[in-house]
Amino acid sequence: MKFVIDQQVQDIEMPENLKLNTFLQEFHSDCPSPECSFGFYGFAFGQSPFHVPNPIQKALIKNVGKGAYAPIQGINELCNAISEYSKYYFHVDVDPKRIYVGPGTKEILFNLLEILHGTVILPTPAWLGYLPQIRFLKKNYHMLPTGVNKKIKPHDLRKLSLRLQDRQKILILNNPNNPTGLLYDKLELEEIAEVCREQNIVVISDEIYAQTTYDFSKFVTMGKIYPEGTFVTNGLSKSHSAGGYRIGYVIFPENAKDVRIQFKKIQATEYTSVSTPIQHAAVEGFQFSKEMDEYLNITRKIHEIMGEYTYHGLKSIPGIKSTKPQATFYLLADFNHLKEEFERSNIQTSQKFSESLIQHPYHTAIVGGDTLVLERTDFSARMAFVDYNGKQAFENYLSDPPKTNSDRIEFVRDNAPRIVSGLDMIELYFEHLTRNAKSRIECKYEEFTIPN
Amino acid sequence: MKFVIDQQVQDIEMPENLKLNTFLQEFHSDCPSPECSFGFYGFAFGQSPFHVPNPIQKALIKNVGKGAYAPIQGINELCNAISEYSKYYFHVDVDPKRIYVGPGTKEILFNLLEILHGTVILPTPAWLGYLPQIRFLKKNYHMLPTGVNKKIKPHDLRKLSLRLQDRQKILILNNPNNPTGLLYDKLELEEIAEVCREQNIVVISDEIYAQTTYDFSKFVTMGKIYPEGTFVTNGLSKSHSAGGYRIGYVIFPENAKDVRIQFKKIQATEYTSVSTPIQHAAVEGFQFSKEMDEYLNITRKIHEIMGEYTYHGLKSIPGIKSTKPQATFYLLADFNHLKEEFERSNIQTSQKFSESLIQHPYHTAIVGGDTLVLERTDFSARMAFVDYNGKQAFENYLSDPPKTNSDRIEFVRDNAPRIVSGLDMIELYFEHLTRNAKSRIECKYEEFTIPN
Repeated sequence: MKFVIDQQVQDIEMPENLKLNTFLQEFHSDCPSPECSFGFYGFAFGQSPFHVPNPIQKALIKNVGKGAYAPIQGINELCNAISEYSKYYFHVDVDPKRIYVGPGTKEILFNLLEILHGTVILPTPAWLGYLPQIRFLKKNYHMLPTGVNKKIKPHDLRKLSLRLQDRQKILILNNPNNPTGLLYDKLELEEIAEVCREQNIVVISDEIYAQTTYDFSKFVTMGKIYPEGTFVTNGLSKSHSAGGYRIGYVIFPENAKDVRIQFKKIQATEYTSVSTPIQHAAVEGFQFSKEMDEYLNITRKIHEIMGEYTYHGLKSIPGIKSTKPQATFYLLADFNHLKEEFERSNIQTSQKFSESLIQHPYHTAIVGGDTLVLERTDFSARMAFVDYNGKQAFENYLSDPPKTNSDRIEFVRDNAPRIVSGLDMIELYFEHLTRNAKSRIECKYEEFTIPN
Repeated sequence: MKFVIDQQVQDIEMPENLKLNTFLQEFHSDCPSPECSFGFYGFAFGQSPFHVPNPIQKALIKNVGKGAYAPIQGINELCNAISEYSKYYFHVDVDPKRIYVGPGTKEILFNLLEILHGTVILPTPAWLGYLPQIRFLKKNYHMLPTGVNKKIKPHDLRKLSLRLQDRQKILILNNPNNPTGLLYDKLELEEIAEVCREQNIVVISDEIYAQTTYDFSKFVTMGKIYPEGTFVTNGLSKSHSAGGYRIGYVIFPENAKDVRIQFKKIQATEYTSVSTPIQHAAVEGFQFSKEMDEYLNITRKIHEIMGEYTYHGLKSIPGIKSTKPQATFYLLADFNHLKEEFERSNIQTSQKFSESLIQHPYHTAIVGGDTLVLERTDFSARMAFVDYNGKQAFENYLSDPPKTNSDRIEFVRDNAPRIVSGLDMIELYFEHLTRNAKSRIECKYEEFTIPN
């Protein structure tokens, strides 16, 4: 039987991170060189390496018997806990009625984009998940390139907005930012909010990395700066190392009851509610406790140490620049100064660069520029610094926290040898590249592409 | 700030079961008569009353530490277990590659409707969840009324299909059926399959109630009859009393690799994957074990006993007819013979009927006809027989299974007193109605409507 598939489904592309991950899983056992049985150095996949916090695990154990459907919006205990969490950590007063829970922030973003009318403004580089959703929903959208400093420029936002005819525009603000690791400060947010008020721009503020901010006192939620127009999304996936649990939440703007009613309808139509045992477990993730607070604190310290090492490792390679991460477990490396060298090795696109780097002998996985909604010929790449045993690193940090700079370097060497080796491999790759050792860099397999 | 909402979102209605449930939750504490503190007799909400099977609970406990994202399609162990389960219980050989897991059957149905091009054929009466999805996705659709015997007539299916211009049509087959509790036999499925082959109709066979078939040897999956064109969906929600876990699966037709690739893309775009701990727990629900088999067996026996009692209770009320359930925990009661009496009490629609029955002194919740995609003036209603303590009933059945007919009636009286009282209330309601005790039946509150 021949099946007919909807055109708009066919037109979207597989989100690149998942494509890459699928590819890497398949590649893993594929290299014919026996010395490469270690797999690959993983700078590509953005998953926190730590264990799920014990309070969450314990709460899940207690609630495995909860087989009944949860209320659509989320169980009361969870909405209340998120409200308290927002107050304690983000200094905003949120009525629990404004909080809705969904099966992962990704699906919540999708639901918001389904509901909100208007043209989407997508600052680039961007997380690799937004664009497939926007395209699938056939929404109008415009890129907003952030340029050299990798942050939204209010002036550019206003200029773009003035060109758009829509009554309502939707800005996707990702703060702290994936892929750059950068943080918007209060003043920057205020300037963006000013344009949003003036231009009738609704903000979806994806703050999933909020708790990973290294100097946490510096994080400011857009929900505080622009409370009447911001949908704040967050969840357990990144800061609580529980991406696999699949739970996220949205805080609706003040006075957006109508939108909430529509949202609930969409939830009821598409998925009813989030897994009940998982919701009960999540309560403990958001409720304040010394143990949770310590967990958040230690994990953000370790991310900072790994980020610093990766940043300095890359900077020491001639021709490579990089953002200096202030949060998240990513940075954006910039290899554009080596464009000529790439071209001499017949590497014309960012995609080809990623592919050549995954090959023998480098075996290093990164997320190339076009995947981050940059030009295909933009040789930038997102590099995640999470390829280590998180539980081990956590325990080691707890028993003996590094104090000096050299302690910190030693901590990385002891706890994240694959990050160290991976950076060495990248160095080797660029040594070969700049020496124009063409035969060693060029793609061995002409057919070599990332499969669907 | 004024938010602009997409028109197609505004146009869909809240799925009625959830609307009703929301309403009932609010109503619960609302009745001013102190003797009604019991709440209401719940024949409306379709949730299995039993406990989550122990093997599933134990497996969830073991896997609370699994915080990593699962593969999009589902973890291998789960796809393998579902394949074995299909073989053992449904006598079909399914390559695990054809099995995809999603966060509830509802979302899987939604995803299939997103992907599959074509006009949807919806036999009525129907489960209350399909239509909001179809409408939200702006799909063309046609009802296919099933008439007196409440089953799809192949002749009518052919006739309707010949009128439709689409290259591909999608039949939603719900077997065993919600709301009727009826089961299609092999011959009936073969006749439907013949029309589908001839008319290029793809079948989505929602078999979520398969395991509740009272005489389980009689259940036949459409996946066996029409393997080249059927998408079979099923899950843990109904037969395993774990609707709150949110996990379902689809078995793709043979040779539908292209559709599978599109499906995976949609999953990756919308929700990534199903909760990892929940997936590991589900493995035990599908893996054959004596304990699971006994659970499925006992729960279906209890459903049968409750169904029989409800069926006979309704039939004994003059003027009321009903389907005789062979599976599920529903039946479709038919009150149309009392249309004149309804009209005399100023009850013009099925909705008004439901509303008058929830009022004092009846306090009985049912799902009215229009909610089941019937005419507004069709006085039919779905009645679920699940308002009892399932764990208790399960244990009582296990220690002393009823054998004779009077044992079974006693079992209901002992274990489901609210079903007994609820049926008495319905009898009282109709006694009042047929006596035309208008003042007692009429809606007290003119403003009385089910809120959004």
